[in-house]
Amino acid sequence: MNAEIINIGDELLIGQVINTNAAWMAAQLNLSGFRVYQVTVISDSRGHIMQALADAEERAEVVLVSGGIGPTKDDLTKQTLCEFFNTRLVFNQEAYGDVEALFARRGYAVTELNRQQAELPENCTGIPNKVGTARGMWFEKDRPGGGKTVFVSMPGVPFEMKAMMTDYVIPRLKQMYTTPFIYHKTLLTQGIGESFLAAEIEEWENSLPSNIKLAYLPQPGIVRLRLTGEGPGEILLHRQVDAEMSKLVALIPEYYFGYDEDTLEMIVGKLLAENHATLATAESCTGGTIAQMITGIPGSSAYFKGSVVAYSNEIKEHILGVSAENLEKFGAVSKQVVTEMAVSLQAKFRVDYAIATSGIAGPDGGTPGKPVGTTLIAIASPGEVFAMQFLFGDSRERNIRRTALQALNMLRKKLIDICS
Amino acid sequence: MNAEIINIGDELLIGQVINTNAAWMAAQLNLSGFRVYQVTVISDSRGHIMQALADAEERAEVVLVSGGIGPTKDDLTKQTLCEFFNTRLVFNQEAYGDVEALFARRGYAVTELNRQQAELPENCTGIPNKVGTARGMWFEKDRPGGGKTVFVSMPGVPFEMKAMMTDYVIPRLKQMYTTPFIYHKTLLTQGIGESFLAAEIEEWENSLPSNIKLAYLPQPGIVRLRLTGEGPGEILLHRQVDAEMSKLVALIPEYYFGYDEDTLEMIVGKLLAENHATLATAESCTGGTIAQMITGIPGSSAYFKGSVVAYSNEIKEHILGVSAENLEKFGAVSKQVVTEMAVSLQAKFRVDYAIATSGIAGPDGGTPGKPVGTTLIAIASPGEVFAMQFLFGDSRERNIRRTALQALNMLRKKLIDICS
Repeated sequence: MNAEIINIGDELLIGQVINTNAAWMAAQLNLSGFRVYQVTVISDSRGHIMQALADAEERAEVVLVSGGIGPTKDDLTKQTLCEFFNTRLVFNQEAYGDVEALFARRGYAVTELNRQQAELPENCTGIPNKVGTARGMWFEKDRPGGGKTVFVSMPGVPFEMKAMMTDYVIPRLKQMYTTPFIYHKTLLTQGIGESFLAAEIEEWENSLPSNIKLAYLPQPGIVRLRLTGEGPGEILLHRQVDAEMSKLVALIPEYYFGYDEDTLEMIVGKLLAENHATLATAESCTGGTIAQMITGIPGSSAYFKGSVVAYSNEIKEHILGVSAENLEKFGAVSKQVVTEMAVSLQAKFRVDYAIATSGIAGPDGGTPGKPVGTTLIAIASPGEVFAMQFLFGDSRERNIRRTALQALNMLRKKLIDICS
Repeated sequence: MNAEIINIGDELLIGQVINTNAAWMAAQLNLSGFRVYQVTVISDSRGHIMQALADAEERAEVVLVSGGIGPTKDDLTKQTLCEFFNTRLVFNQEAYGDVEALFARRGYAVTELNRQQAELPENCTGIPNKVGTARGMWFEKDRPGGGKTVFVSMPGVPFEMKAMMTDYVIPRLKQMYTTPFIYHKTLLTQGIGESFLAAEIEEWENSLPSNIKLAYLPQPGIVRLRLTGEGPGEILLHRQVDAEMSKLVALIPEYYFGYDEDTLEMIVGKLLAENHATLATAESCTGGTIAQMITGIPGSSAYFKGSVVAYSNEIKEHILGVSAENLEKFGAVSKQVVTEMAVSLQAKFRVDYAIATSGIAGPDGGTPGKPVGTTLIAIASPGEVFAMQFLFGDSRERNIRRTALQALNMLRKKLIDICS
């Protein structure tokens, strides 16, 4: 069953607003077994709306439109809808009653603009708006070959659109159509690039059943692998996708760290909390990024004690207690110093685990022996410490991000006893 | 001059990824005098790509495509481009050399997949990719009525696409087309909400000449005010917009902190560097966010010595040296404690300036006397310290962000001697 999304709004076309509506609407449709064939963003003008509706009608059975309605811009879109559906605007007493009630609750007077909002095309069903003044509109139009196309027009304000979708549009669509089950599951990996990952799992990928597709979704430092399955039975489909996911996990045990909306800082936090263990970080090149990521998680104060960002050798020596001799002999970006940072912080902060980072984030500071991107990470755990060296890239921002993710993954593996 | 954007990617159509590329690309085109007529999001399939390219060609002179190329998905899109432009793939030695050089710098071996990436349609110009392996492609196709349509294919990875747009696509488009002069200048403000700002500057806004438009661009903690002028002469237009900007600045001297791509951390960094002064941060509720923002700036090690993230009272007491008595008597979220944090850190880290934060970021930890959002910020400067209390909102993420921005702006005002 094909669906399309049309987002109306000049603010989207000048790049002032990011189109978050499309992603949310698409996710909802997808979860309900509708495939989104196309998203089209258009301007709030008669000709463009007419064209986009006609084009979408040719390709899809369900067309969801957001934007172009609301107190200050109602007119044009509704007139255009009337033209497209060959109907006229009529005053809708029920819609007007809703606006009156909403305004009474907020203590506002109803304006003439709001009165106009209660006019709806004659052949649509009005969709109640519990959180705003613009009603949604549900149209059904005969298809040339038989059957009907559903068109739904909703406000562009995200929370108004979301409430309508959840309370009305999705339930009614599900009643109307029998859709296949679609199941997505995404595996998260860290520490391996897209092309290397592809080589590792090529054989498994080629053996996937035809109703399951794999997608690579790379981000700096992280590659997500999404499996999408489609099938007639929900339980069987879940089992089938989960079985493929298990095979995938077995191929890359050292790289995968979670599923779907998981983050490394969330998983590390859960593991620490479960183990009643505490953590602190000693950060040079990451400059507080790891602490910032960890403390972004609600409740992190239960396991995270704090951090020393040691951005100068003076702080490494006087606050962390790194030996001046090691700093002099090996330099700040060395296995010796990063190890000392971790161990010293672990003692000073009286924590079970400590992460230490030191590196050359760039753009300056590289040398032939230690080019930009050179990074050392140490993990101190009870009675033990280890350090690893990496060579990341040229971008300061991405070097910092990759170092933070790599460090969190090293700690995660330590916490669940996977050798790195 | 009409442009269109086509974003290829199943991840966009299932709603897994929000289409931030479209907004960014649209903004860049707009700034260069191109009007974006439509954004179309399509699947990575031959028929759909062919159709979208043909449709866009009818409406626009410039068609920018992102997505569908990269190590694991190159094939189909490039084959389809060959079909659309009636050409074939040929091995491009220059493109291959770039990949080899990139991998050599990172110490990786080139894979067969990467080799295939060096194949490009014969009639395109390859666009260098400084930060990834997939080249962009620039095509020109004759229009039926004369003239040419430009098609550009770029990777979907945002930072790769952005680098190509900035370094190659926009400059070349500007060379090719004469567009009206459009001049944007954006003023950055901190510490005042959108509706309050609107009330402060209403009279000035109403008096703007008709060729200059104002847009409010709010973000958590920051409101950007963008003036967009359009006119036939560049010099005159700049003078006109700059004059309006000066009037605006005079209306809100305590809130504005910079222009365009400036950030508070960048401006604070410059002021510190100019004054040969040093900074450190003692962060509780911000959890390292201020340190992370400051150290994101290249060269920040010249003025930033480091930070103590004191996420527990134990660290506040034992590492920072806050008195147990004050912690007990006033609590960690108090003027007394945050002042002590700043002063103590200033002494321990031997810096000229110190920022300290303490607050209840939420969602838990609020009390009737100190609800979620309660935040204290202290700034210690040579021979002086002051602290201020704020009540932000309910969102943990936004509370952290707003605290960090507010603290940086307090320090900025201190550094240039504006009373806060």
